[in-house]
Amino acid sequence: MDTPSFLLQIALILVTARLAAELAAWARMPRVFGELAAGVVLGPSLLGWIEVNAVIQVLAEIGIILLLFEVGLETDVGRLLRAGGRSTLVAVTGFVVPFVLGFYLSRDFFGLSLLVSLFIAGTLTATSIGITVRILTDLGRQNSPEGQVVLGAAVLDDILGVILLAVLFDFSASGQVDPGKAGKVVMLVLGFFLLAPLAARALSTLIRYFHEISDAPGVVPVLLVSLVLAFAGLAHAIGAPQLLGGFAAGLAVSRRFFLPFAVSLRVDTAFGEHMHEQMRPVIQLFTPIFFVMVGLSIDLSLVDWGSAFIWTFSLSVAAVAILGKLVSGLLIPGSRYTRVVIGMAMVPRGEIGLIFAEIGRASGIFEADVHAALVLVIAYTTLLAPFWIKLYYRWYGHHMEEC
Amino acid sequence: MDTPSFLLQIALILVTARLAAELAAWARMPRVFGELAAGVVLGPSLLGWIEVNAVIQVLAEIGIILLLFEVGLETDVGRLLRAGGRSTLVAVTGFVVPFVLGFYLSRDFFGLSLLVSLFIAGTLTATSIGITVRILTDLGRQNSPEGQVVLGAAVLDDILGVILLAVLFDFSASGQVDPGKAGKVVMLVLGFFLLAPLAARALSTLIRYFHEISDAPGVVPVLLVSLVLAFAGLAHAIGAPQLLGGFAAGLAVSRRFFLPFAVSLRVDTAFGEHMHEQMRPVIQLFTPIFFVMVGLSIDLSLVDWGSAFIWTFSLSVAAVAILGKLVSGLLIPGSRYTRVVIGMAMVPRGEIGLIFAEIGRASGIFEADVHAALVLVIAYTTLLAPFWIKLYYRWYGHHMEEC
Repeated sequence: MDTPSFLLQIALILVTARLAAELAAWARMPRVFGELAAGVVLGPSLLGWIEVNAVIQVLAEIGIILLLFEVGLETDVGRLLRAGGRSTLVAVTGFVVPFVLGFYLSRDFFGLSLLVSLFIAGTLTATSIGITVRILTDLGRQNSPEGQVVLGAAVLDDILGVILLAVLFDFSASGQVDPGKAGKVVMLVLGFFLLAPLAARALSTLIRYFHEISDAPGVVPVLLVSLVLAFAGLAHAIGAPQLLGGFAAGLAVSRRFFLPFAVSLRVDTAFGEHMHEQMRPVIQLFTPIFFVMVGLSIDLSLVDWGSAFIWTFSLSVAAVAILGKLVSGLLIPGSRYTRVVIGMAMVPRGEIGLIFAEIGRASGIFEADVHAALVLVIAYTTLLAPFWIKLYYRWYGHHMEEC
Repeated sequence: MDTPSFLLQIALILVTARLAAELAAWARMPRVFGELAAGVVLGPSLLGWIEVNAVIQVLAEIGIILLLFEVGLETDVGRLLRAGGRSTLVAVTGFVVPFVLGFYLSRDFFGLSLLVSLFIAGTLTATSIGITVRILTDLGRQNSPEGQVVLGAAVLDDILGVILLAVLFDFSASGQVDPGKAGKVVMLVLGFFLLAPLAARALSTLIRYFHEISDAPGVVPVLLVSLVLAFAGLAHAIGAPQLLGGFAAGLAVSRRFFLPFAVSLRVDTAFGEHMHEQMRPVIQLFTPIFFVMVGLSIDLSLVDWGSAFIWTFSLSVAAVAILGKLVSGLLIPGSRYTRVVIGMAMVPRGEIGLIFAEIGRASGIFEADVHAALVLVIAYTTLLAPFWIKLYYRWYGHHMEEC
């Protein structure tokens, strides 16, 4: 395809996403639902005008990485660490329960093979940080106490999901599990999360220095975007999801970033605000492309809607996927309302689930109907969660703490 | 190639371009020279770390389109129209002289065939708007009287170049010239330039309305970038260079845009300033990618530096290319200094020249050595012009009008 067609596609994606988001907001639905629906409409499911290609994929990835950068930027690290215990509990519960339920459902109820059942179970484990964060941001709850727990838990279960994927992939290839490999991924990801914010912090001080000595404008958008993309690439290189690189960079640049030995690296408030100001239009430009791409990747026209298997399998797996995350908040302290909404916010699956499904399909583990059903499960959780959460806040929001 | 590698490539391009631009500025060289050199260093000529691919190409195109959008935004349409007569004279002179000289040099001196000579001559006709504008902007002269004449002339000779390309391409395919086809291109391009600014103006009023009624931020970057990209795609669809679509959109949104029957569509100053503020980081982010890509597209390692033909041919064609543009300012009224600097600013060749060279190569009209020599000619004009112009302003700038 030639460059002009790409430009028209990008324009079409941006305009449709925005109009659909406005329409959704007008109908009191979540904006992100409009953007996902725009992708479904433009994509192979309905009109078939746009197919996902390398260009759209890169722009979409930049979008989600920049969104996670902004989430990191606005995260209060202290609060996130204080929520750490609860986040870990939510992440582990919400990881184990859907895995176990999904495995038994596939293996014992649908009689699928061990490997297929393991991959189906894996598909259900990781919450989509991107979609969850967008839902909470659309509702203005991203910095609420429950928002911090959910954010931490979503980050943690993405890491768990990636480790599981490494282990299962190994298992599918060699027929046995290599604990050394899993351990290596864990060490690398932990090392990344300890060192990346410090490195990013030092680099952001360099960016500030450049900003001061350069005669020409544009230092902040150019170098900060480079920093974020480089960290995303680095995260990928060590086996973690790219968007976690963006999140780490955002945490580091955040004004609320504080570590005992990083005191001298603190960025002052005015420059922090300048950075955010300069990044905002860039983030707003790229982010919708990601959510449209999620919609574009779902091909509802491939689904054989007449098959009984598709309905029974996808609906029962979806039930397990939803139930498994809904209970994830129950073990932590706090009000009933907060614990329920945390479980609801953990429901949407996305990037990692789609990667599981895609690797399962590409390596021949999943038959076409199982793959279609799993994509459908991800679509259910992604498309429906924003509604429940919005409704729940409307009904019970007054019981929850102000943020 | 996978997405993470693209992200790292983009980060590498942005950081290298910025560092090289700062280095160039520190050595009192033009910034754009640093960005072009960054491309030569990263590309196949030297390190070979990055090859031009679809993703980089689309980002680079967006960069040059947004740069031309900004040029249009800052253009005083009244002044541009007043400079119209002089621009036309400069464009026609600077189009005809290099064409005639290039044709006779290739045909009579180097004994090349009619078609090859015509394509070589065509390669020399069109000034690179992008590079010329960047040189003038780096020197703060983009809104000077000579800047307006050069901008108008560069736009016009791009249009002339595209028409010539359509005619020659037809000639190479059928062996005869179809005046109807050339006439159609002329009509479409003229129609576009008359109607596009009005349409863009109406759409920008819509964007303003959206900006006012939407609860969510990001209307301006998302919809304005869409507008610019859509106009670029439209320009391409009717056969004009894409960047002219960006320029037309910029002219239309400009605060200084004024047409008798568009009075009611005028955008007020505060919103105009808001639009520019929101667009600036996006423009600054994308633009360097274009200039790096120009450097990446030149593969100096392919040139057989030992061949006498490469040297005699490329240097004599370059002499003709430079001389043919240097005289382009001589027929217009004004001070000697202004006329000379206008000629100098018209020297850089770029996009259209590279398209001529590429079509000549791909259709088998150019042998490898002729193609390499022409790319070298474009490189000479692009890499050297910024120096002469900067030096000329330093020596004689005090003779020229303030802007």
